[in-house]
Amino acid sequence: MELYFSPLACSMATRIALYEAGASADYLEVDPKTKAVLKDGSDFTEVNPLGLVPTLRTDDGAVLTENAAILQYVADRFPQANLGTGAGMERSRLHQWLCFIGTELHKGLFVTLLDKKAPQDAKTYVVEKNLSRLDYLENYLQGREYLLDHFSVADAYLVTVINWTMATPPVELAKWPALTAYYERLRARPSVAKAIAEEFELYKAEIARHKAAA
Amino acid sequence: MELYFSPLACSMATRIALYEAGASADYLEVDPKTKAVLKDGSDFTEVNPLGLVPTLRTDDGAVLTENAAILQYVADRFPQANLGTGAGMERSRLHQWLCFIGTELHKGLFVTLLDKKAPQDAKTYVVEKNLSRLDYLENYLQGREYLLDHFSVADAYLVTVINWTMATPPVELAKWPALTAYYERLRARPSVAKAIAEEFELYKAEIARHKAAA
Repeated sequence: MELYFSPLACSMATRIALYEAGASADYLEVDPKTKAVLKDGSDFTEVNPLGLVPTLRTDDGAVLTENAAILQYVADRFPQANLGTGAGMERSRLHQWLCFIGTELHKGLFVTLLDKKAPQDAKTYVVEKNLSRLDYLENYLQGREYLLDHFSVADAYLVTVINWTMATPPVELAKWPALTAYYERLRARPSVAKAIAEEFELYKAEIARHKAAA
Repeated sequence: MELYFSPLACSMATRIALYEAGASADYLEVDPKTKAVLKDGSDFTEVNPLGLVPTLRTDDGAVLTENAAILQYVADRFPQANLGTGAGMERSRLHQWLCFIGTELHKGLFVTLLDKKAPQDAKTYVVEKNLSRLDYLENYLQGREYLLDHFSVADAYLVTVINWTMATPPVELAKWPALTAYYERLRARPSVAKAIAEEFELYKAEIARHKAAA
């Protein structure tokens, strides 16, 4: 299995899931600016024309894209890790959270805030429109340890997204205490702690590389 | 089963899926501006605090939100309609398309273009950033009838989103001939034709209501 990723991007959720499952995989770093695969300089857009991470190549050679699809693939591939759910309403709730995180938080709020090229008006617009999504989450997380009744790929995705608040100052995480506690709790989880520590080092190297090339 | 919807919004995908399944449901119209349920004037945000359609109340009384979750629920609930897939890679592809449509098209492009309150800079930004997603789709749809090997809930979602190009002039659908042909083909499908015709009438009434209240 090969995972194309960029440091601290949403692909980190899949790394967390794979660590939870104790699964081995090749992690292929993609430079988000040049879209080059660092290992061999090859063009990532030949693997995924959208140039988006995560992209997963399965052991059968199938190329799978889109975070929610890859996370559920990993959950299904390693059922002993209990990262997914059984059929029925529990699975519907997993779909619901993956969709909420992907559309309302990731795309609706953070993508624009993280983009240095986004105009200020666009940033102000998404904050006005979507910051209330964090109130909704705050309310839901009161008295809950995870999004479902156990740690799932939805938590792997959410902690990855909330981790971006380090770099998106208009979103002051401390304003949402239950969400802050959730984030701190999950960040202490071994799979998450390991993933963040490793990818933070790679992120610093990426920044240095971009500075050197500028 | 109750479906909270607004005319021509992404909730139309669930209506199409229900028509495909020959399922009966109560369709409860929500005014997108006031968030009132038209039938009885009740406050929709008491059902879904996010105020977003679609929202589904199942026969068991569970409230399910998020388009991808609701569409897959309907597919699972009416298996004879073959709107979903079996397990394995086919299901991963369904997840992939639902996620792509929800994040890259719906949230990444159309939500901002459809929002009258969005600043022009924000509209220009999403077009520059995400219009290429339609090239990707164009390329994929060459020689294909549906997103998967049969009509699925992903098609119900995609035709609903592409239908918005009527109201988003910067996106000139004719530039993507395979996508245009796909849209025309699906729009002629009885479930889709019926849903669009019905919701277009309700949409006109919504516009008239807003004008009268202004």
